[in-house]
Amino acid sequence: MYGPEQGSENLRTELAHFLSETRGLNVGAEDILITKGVQMALYLTAQILLTKNDTVIVGEPGYSGANEIFEQAGAKLELVPVDDDGIDLDVVESICKKKKIRLLYVIPHHHTPTTVTLSSERRMRLLEMAKKYQFAIIEDDYDFDFQYSSSPVLPLASANYYGSVIYVGSFCKTIAPGIRIGFMVAPSNFLLQATKLRKLIDRQGEHLLEEAMANLLKNGDISRHLKKANKLYHERRDELCRLLHEHLADEVSFKVPEGGFAIWINYINKHDPVRVAENAAELGLTVSNGIDYYHDKNFKNYAVRLGFASLNTTELKDAVDLLKKAIKKCYN
Amino acid sequence: MYGPEQGSENLRTELAHFLSETRGLNVGAEDILITKGVQMALYLTAQILLTKNDTVIVGEPGYSGANEIFEQAGAKLELVPVDDDGIDLDVVESICKKKKIRLLYVIPHHHTPTTVTLSSERRMRLLEMAKKYQFAIIEDDYDFDFQYSSSPVLPLASANYYGSVIYVGSFCKTIAPGIRIGFMVAPSNFLLQATKLRKLIDRQGEHLLEEAMANLLKNGDISRHLKKANKLYHERRDELCRLLHEHLADEVSFKVPEGGFAIWINYINKHDPVRVAENAAELGLTVSNGIDYYHDKNFKNYAVRLGFASLNTTELKDAVDLLKKAIKKCYN
Repeated sequence: MYGPEQGSENLRTELAHFLSETRGLNVGAEDILITKGVQMALYLTAQILLTKNDTVIVGEPGYSGANEIFEQAGAKLELVPVDDDGIDLDVVESICKKKKIRLLYVIPHHHTPTTVTLSSERRMRLLEMAKKYQFAIIEDDYDFDFQYSSSPVLPLASANYYGSVIYVGSFCKTIAPGIRIGFMVAPSNFLLQATKLRKLIDRQGEHLLEEAMANLLKNGDISRHLKKANKLYHERRDELCRLLHEHLADEVSFKVPEGGFAIWINYINKHDPVRVAENAAELGLTVSNGIDYYHDKNFKNYAVRLGFASLNTTELKDAVDLLKKAIKKCYN
Repeated sequence: MYGPEQGSENLRTELAHFLSETRGLNVGAEDILITKGVQMALYLTAQILLTKNDTVIVGEPGYSGANEIFEQAGAKLELVPVDDDGIDLDVVESICKKKKIRLLYVIPHHHTPTTVTLSSERRMRLLEMAKKYQFAIIEDDYDFDFQYSSSPVLPLASANYYGSVIYVGSFCKTIAPGIRIGFMVAPSNFLLQATKLRKLIDRQGEHLLEEAMANLLKNGDISRHLKKANKLYHERRDELCRLLHEHLADEVSFKVPEGGFAIWINYINKHDPVRVAENAAELGLTVSNGIDYYHDKNFKNYAVRLGFASLNTTELKDAVDLLKKAIKKCYN
């Protein structure tokens, strides 16, 4: 028969434990909606909260996948710069003083694309601002579970005193991108609306897959896998950083990301990322051309993300060699 | 990695063969979008085609799940009676003469809930009307594959000369309701929009499941299963009809459905279906209370659908016995 539209109760129960243990989220099964990845959680939120010409604050650079969802719902975007501590809250506040903000979208850990982490101070200030200016926050914590250098910072949702935070996350990065299990944690009235809309869209998730995921959480397989994956990705991050320092110190600058799957590099000598990507493609290397990071298409961008998670040591070495050749070709 | 948002190419290729062989649909893989059941196909169509206050024609009684989707998209419904040959096209035409219609929703085989089949004559007339009055048709052919008494009538989409038909179907009834694989066949410009929106909503379907379904179609398992299932459901339909004739001839009237999973019965003595359902529940029998079939909640309804597909001979006998008791209790 059909399954429950809110998602498997077993999965929600196990997930509540998991979120409590890993993130300090004080939630029960009833506070969670299982979604098809973060993607659907963002879509549902946008459809419920936004009406035409509402204003949404997003980081610039940012995640174009989210920006598209907000714009499709009819919203206008306000682009706010992202520095080493995350989204710039002084700019956010100056916007709030000028106009009504409906929603702010934030990726607090390893921000896409810059990989910076929103500092604890900014998190507390952001919560206070959401209360003062009465906007909702979508906290997209899609890669919280992948942290190498230090302990992850607790989510805004763990201190959600005012009910302003919609917390979304995913197992797509834990198992495989094609395994589409994500989740939303939100105040009950909002969760009810999101569940109703989800039922209208596609009735329910993949019930068998959700039950399987519940078992993997319950028997500790996910925790063990995350431990192993973190160790491996930590090594790969360090190896890619080492290779970039050794072979491309004159060409790229970067900060070591505290977690996640990518390093945000700047082409110091202002090579066009589109040209580098074309050169790389000719050599058999896929590298981002940088055009999706900035919403403002007139912005001249010299930075791209280099993913390291799926490459072993030999592949990382080959990739950096090819990238070096691709950059050198820009001088011809 | 991620899979294709239009759905597995293998599945679309196999499905194109299947739809051509079974339904005379002259389509290729590129004409198909894989969806999460008919539900998502309807949601996508409504979101793309409808803007606030557009008019949609639906059958009355009809499928409340579809009506909800159209109303959520902002549309106004025009309710058109359904007789023994399907939706009443004289009424449809009189509406078209008075106002602009954007969309007509039709379940041509074993209409939900009445189980009637739209006649060939009406199908041709409906196509001509769609051209004349410039509306789109959603043809929801969710149980085409389950036909017992005669050959199924070819879909409107098989004669889609004017590109007005969006054809939707599903394997949810073929394997299990929880296996959410449906599909949409539509003109290419519309399919492109639907694919884009689907990507925004949840990125893609369950790729592994889609590949598995492609294999089941390719190796003939689906066809063999459908043959077996049709034989079994045919027997169950006949058995339920026999039992109703034998035990409830004074209480219910019905027409034998040509296919599908249910019989549409009328309580001849005008018992309230809500009361019958309550009595039945006390006896341990789940039977519809009839409140979802009519959009007009003031309509006094005396009909319900009895599903037979999941019950074996013994269970059918028990169910009819209990239904008889539940009806008798209405006289107390």
